[in-house]
This record gives sequence, structure tokens and C-alpha cells, in this order.
Amino acid sequence: MRITPLTELTERSRNLQQQLREQQLDAAILVQNSDLFYFTGSIQRGLYYLPAEGEPIYFVFRDQGRARMESGLCHVVPIDRLASLVGELGRFGVSLPGRAGMEFDVLPVIEAQRYQKLLPATEFVDIAPQVRTVRAIKSGYELEIMKDCALLADRVYEEVKNLLAVGKTDHEVMAELFGFALKQGHQGLIRMRRFNAEMFFGHIFSGVDSAVPAHLDAPLGGLGTTPAVGQGAGHKKIAAHEPIIVDFIIAYDGYLVDQTRTFSIGPLTDKLQQAYADMLTIQKFMVDLARPGVSWSDLYRQCYQRACELGYEEHFMGAGSSRVRFIGHGIGVEVDEYPFIAEGFDDQVLLPGMTFAFEPKAVFPGLGAVGVENTWRVAEEGVKRLTYSCENLWQLPQP
Amino acid sequence: MRITPLTELTERSRNLQQQLREQQLDAAILVQNSDLFYFTGSIQRGLYYLPAEGEPIYFVFRDQGRARMESGLCHVVPIDRLASLVGELGRFGVSLPGRAGMEFDVLPVIEAQRYQKLLPATEFVDIAPQVRTVRAIKSGYELEIMKDCALLADRVYEEVKNLLAVGKTDHEVMAELFGFALKQGHQGLIRMRRFNAEMFFGHIFSGVDSAVPAHLDAPLGGLGTTPAVGQGAGHKKIAAHEPIIVDFIIAYDGYLVDQTRTFSIGPLTDKLQQAYADMLTIQKFMVDLARPGVSWSDLYRQCYQRACELGYEEHFMGAGSSRVRFIGHGIGVEVDEYPFIAEGFDDQVLLPGMTFAFEPKAVFPGLGAVGVENTWRVAEEGVKRLTYSCENLWQLPQP
Repeated sequence: MRITPLTELTERSRNLQQQLREQQLDAAILVQNSDLFYFTGSIQRGLYYLPAEGEPIYFVFRDQGRARMESGLCHVVPIDRLASLVGELGRFGVSLPGRAGMEFDVLPVIEAQRYQKLLPATEFVDIAPQVRTVRAIKSGYELEIMKDCALLADRVYEEVKNLLAVGKTDHEVMAELFGFALKQGHQGLIRMRRFNAEMFFGHIFSGVDSAVPAHLDAPLGGLGTTPAVGQGAGHKKIAAHEPIIVDFIIAYDGYLVDQTRTFSIGPLTDKLQQAYADMLTIQKFMVDLARPGVSWSDLYRQCYQRACELGYEEHFMGAGSSRVRFIGHGIGVEVDEYPFIAEGFDDQVLLPGMTFAFEPKAVFPGLGAVGVENTWRVAEEGVKRLTYSCENLWQLPQP
Repeated sequence: MRITPLTELTERSRNLQQQLREQQLDAAILVQNSDLFYFTGSIQRGLYYLPAEGEPIYFVFRDQGRARMESGLCHVVPIDRLASLVGELGRFGVSLPGRAGMEFDVLPVIEAQRYQKLLPATEFVDIAPQVRTVRAIKSGYELEIMKDCALLADRVYEEVKNLLAVGKTDHEVMAELFGFALKQGHQGLIRMRRFNAEMFFGHIFSGVDSAVPAHLDAPLGGLGTTPAVGQGAGHKKIAAHEPIIVDFIIAYDGYLVDQTRTFSIGPLTDKLQQAYADMLTIQKFMVDLARPGVSWSDLYRQCYQRACELGYEEHFMGAGSSRVRFIGHGIGVEVDEYPFIAEGFDDQVLLPGMTFAFEPKAVFPGLGAVGVENTWRVAEEGVKRLTYSCENLWQLPQP
């Protein structure tokens, strides 16, 4: 169990303070679990108050003793209810903010109304893009944790070979594999930031079930076991010679990596083998292009164009009208961080320290899906792999 | 896999329309996954538009084909982007609402702003309490699913006996037990409504670790494996003669039940055995009191007073300052539904069809926790148990 060092927390607050000054904000008030963990080291219920100048204060409703233990911040302050905030800020000599930033992308309306009522003279604005910008750049400390996640991911993928069998259902394999991953140290919870976006552990699909689209903004959805979840492994039985795609998110010590590999029992058809090789080609193409300064959308367009040249226009990142318009996503504390390797981000560029998952996948309705995914970090000279499991098509012998 | 019947959906919409008229609202616009599932039968990305009079319309961004398959509603309408909503409503002859309700307790500020911008003349108000009021009353169809959950819960608790062993960690047992539950059909995802509230699968703690409080509004928290999660099973090894509390939420076909049992390897001390017996006494006390018309808070106060009379003032529902001020919570599609068996709800009463988990627990720092939890439904004549596993203290023989 890691406790985030104070040096890390200090640097993170400083980076956000720079954003506050650029946005002419007097303070940030952050309350969401992922942001609390990033900026305080703890998710005990409360709020992280960061003035544009000076020290951050972590006000904690519950559990206060535990927040003291988990957070390295100097000011971890018990507070009984939100109404006490004004008085507590006064006690610290902090004047009430004229303009304050909150996480409008995740903050429910009633929570925002409570803060507005408490600080009626304060103008509240959205600070989510700035928070996400700060969080996108990973420190050496964060990369070390993500390397531990990648180690765990490799153990999980080695185990897949022991679990796949003709006649077993996708859901059974998921249950066994997730049980294994938990036992190896997976933290269980996986966080997504986007409203209504949910992710249980990742996806395992065999054959046709890989091509079922879902509500989620993902190339593969899956039928799942109920419309209430509407994604994930279903009760389809695995057959020989069909692609089995395993897309597993490893969560450990608060961080995530995302990895996909394609398996089969008995060899795949030449067409699917070729498609898998072509997805590796697109990955290689990305590696040759990606470096600090390249725009997220330019990287997307060039890789998408490469996929079309290879003949996958109707099959890349989903089939037909179900295709999604991205090939990769930032990852760290949440699955859907900056950067997005997608259209619409021409003014955003890759920077050293960013980490993202890149997941070229080809979907063939009636047949299934093949693809590969790794988590990458942006270094000065280009991108480096964090996840490292063997990238061959894992064609297991047919018993 | 159940597909919600149209008769169910129709009744649910009618019940919400009655609430709309009482609140003098022209429409409800619901977008959150749990509410979408309840009112449309699907969580495909979109919005459920319910006018105060007339038929509901499920507008779907993604995946449209799948929404048609999953939702029994007559009007499942593909929509390319939110801006098209006004035109689509016109096509259906629906006039734009003067006052519309949305789920302010879960809707992020930026989403609310998008709707306000789209419908600038509409006054938006919070309709979450009305939605929760409708959802609190379960139909026979819903109770049947919850009975299936209770069956699955019983299989899971039988398995606990096979998994507990001295020297194993809580986290290892959790991994094996959750893997087992998934394989038995558990849907994986568990939904909580409250902002920042998260639940992975439930909790397993042995001995002292049960008494670690957490950010969550729950009597037990647990150390977990990282401050990033801040709850749940940790790496403590199970010893003989200490209480092992298993609080497991079963999720199946979109519905949940919540059940807790207390185990040990070798007998517990007399004090802990007595405490467990006293928690059963409090449960019995609740059963004798609870019936339609009883207020949620009155039920809470009387049970709490009974716990104090039995000597648990400092140990009931947490220890010392970490005690929580509730003993039960509604459950259905989410873990934290109406009713709350807690202070602050004197004007709310139990009604036939409500379902709630009741979880008297006693926490002793340095020793551990004991307790019992079942999921109950309110019938005309009182409450009936949905979960039914043996309520004995499960003291396993020491090998």
C-alpha cells in the first residue's frame, strides 16, 4: 500500500495553482474521489481547497482520523458540516474567493447549488479541463505504480491461456480471470469520469459477441448478461477457430493500465490473422509518429487513414454505424483521461509524461473482433510501452 | 436475461406522471443509467422524455438498434445529437415544457447547462425525490428478480464456509468469493446513487479490520488495499476466534439484495456471541414494529433506543465518533434507495412494496464487528424476508 508522498502532492498543487492564475481564479474547490486522491492522497469525504497562492487545505467530514493517516498534506482539517467552511477559511486567514473553480463535469447540480448558497458572492466556473490537464502529466512516482500495474497485467494474461476452453462461456472465463486478478492484488474498483460511463473490469468476448455494440463509447461492447448493464461478457460458449478478445483494465494502488490481446483455440482464418497483423502495423505506425508536440487529432487522423489504406474503413474501431471516433484514451487514475486520440483536439498536443492506451481493433459482424492494446507513456524522444505482454496472436492448440 | 415487460414500463411511467402533475411539471427528462433502466428497460445512451400527459419517448444516441431490442417502449427514437431534440419533440406533437424535472442529485452541472441552453425558456427543477419515490415501490415482477438475487446470495454464503481458513487474507477470500459469485451469475456492476459513493462488491473483514471507519456512509469501512479506494478487504490474515463479517451485495438482472452474516473459525468469546444474539434481537424488534404507515425515522429511533437499552450505545452501527445515523436503506436497482431507516424522515412512511436492507451491527475497536443483515419487503401485514440464509452465528470448526 502506497501513501502518496508530500513532494508529489506539493508539485501537483503547484501545477494546478499555475492553471488557476492563468484562468484568473482565486481558488479551486475539488470534491470528486479521483481528484481528491490525486491532490490529497486520500478520498475521505471532504473537499480540497486550493487558493491561487498559499497552501492547500483538505477539509474532511468523514473519516477524519483516516484522512490524517492517508494524506501527506500539512493542513488536514476536520469539519462537521459544509456551513462551517466559511468560518474555517477565516481561521486560516484565507479570504473568500471572488472566482472559484469546481469540477462541473462530475459535480451534481444539487452539490453545486449547496456551494453557491454557501458562497453567494462567489462566481463558480468549470475547472475540470485544467484539473485534467494537470493530471495528464504523470510523474516518475506515478509511472512506477503504472509499471506495477503492467506487471500484474502480464500475470493476468498468462493466466488466460489456462482458462480458455471450448464450451466455456465468456462470462465464466471473465469470472475466473477477474477472481484471479483480484487475488493477485487488483484493487477491484475502476473509475471512469464521464457521466454514466461504467466499467466493471474490462471485456472478454468470443466470436460474434465481440461485434455487439453498446452504449459505451468503446469499439467493442458485448451483450452482457442483462440490459441493466448492457455491456461485457455474456453467456456465449467459446468455439474453436474464433477470435477471443481480452481487454482487461488493471487497477492497483489507485492507478490503471489497459491492455488487449487476441486469443483463439485452434488457428484463425487467414483473414482474421491478417487483420490482427494489420492492427499491429497500425500500432507500429502510431509509435513512429507519436512524440511531444504532435496533436492528438493529427495522430488520430493519420492512424485512421492508415487503417483505411489497409482496407478497414468499415471495420476499424467498430463496424458500420457503430464505429467510434477515437483510437486511444489517456489513462491513470481514471480510464478516460487526457489525451484523447480522437477528432476535435487539434489544438492539444502530446507532452512528455502523458500516458495513454492505444487500441486499434477490427470488428467483423458475424465473425468477431481482433485487436491489440497497450498503455504508453510519452517520453522526450517518442512513446514507450508500459504494458509489455507478448503481442503475438495467442493461438492455443486445440485439445 | 430478462427484458422488462411493457406492462411494467407503462405502470412506472404512469406513476411518475402522477408525480409530475402534483409538482405542476410539464415533463420529466431522465438520463442517468439506473433511471433509464427503470423507465425504459435499457441503458443505451439517450434520454427518457415523459410528458405529464401522453406517451414517453426514449431518444437514443447510441446504440439505437440495441435500445430497440432492449426497451419495450413504443417510442424508441434514434437521435443524432442533443440539438435535434426540439425538432424531434415537434415531430411527435409534444410542445416544449414550461417546467421540466431532471435528476439534480446525479446530473453533472455541464449536462444541466446543455439542457438549459437547448431549452432556454424552460424552468428546470429537481425531480430526483419524485423519481426515487416511484422507484421505491416494487412490483411483483421486481420482487421476483430480487428473490432470484436472494437465491444467489444463499449459494454465495454457503461457499464462504469452504473458503475461510486461518492464515488466508481477507482480500484473498474476497477474490475467491467474488469470483464464485460472478460465475454463479452475479452481474458485476453495483450501483450507488449518492455522489462519490462507490461499492465494489460488498465487504469481508476479519477481526480488528472490521472496525476501521471509512469515507462511506456505512457502519463498517475496512482498510482496503489502497487509500485510492479507502474501503473494503485488506491484507489482514484471518485468525481463529475472531469475528469475520461478510456483507455481500448480490446483483442480478439489474436488481440487488444486501445480506450480512458473521462467521468465525473456532468459537467467539461470550461477549461477541452475545452481541451477535443482540443484533438478532434488534432485527426481531424491527420486524415486530415495521408495517405500512410507520415512519422511517420512528422505526430508526425505536430500534436505536433498543440497541442502547441492550448496552450498545457506543458500539451500534460503528464505534464512537464513527457511528452512522442509520440502520437500514432501501435497495433495488441501487444500493441507496428510499426508504432510509434513519433520522430526518419523520414525514415519510413505509408503504407496501418498499424493499430495504436492515443491518444491525456492533463494532468493537480492537476486536472486530458482528452483525446481521437481510433484505426485506413491506407487505400489508408487516415485513417479509427476501434473503433467507441461516441466521446462526456461523462458527466453523477449527481444523
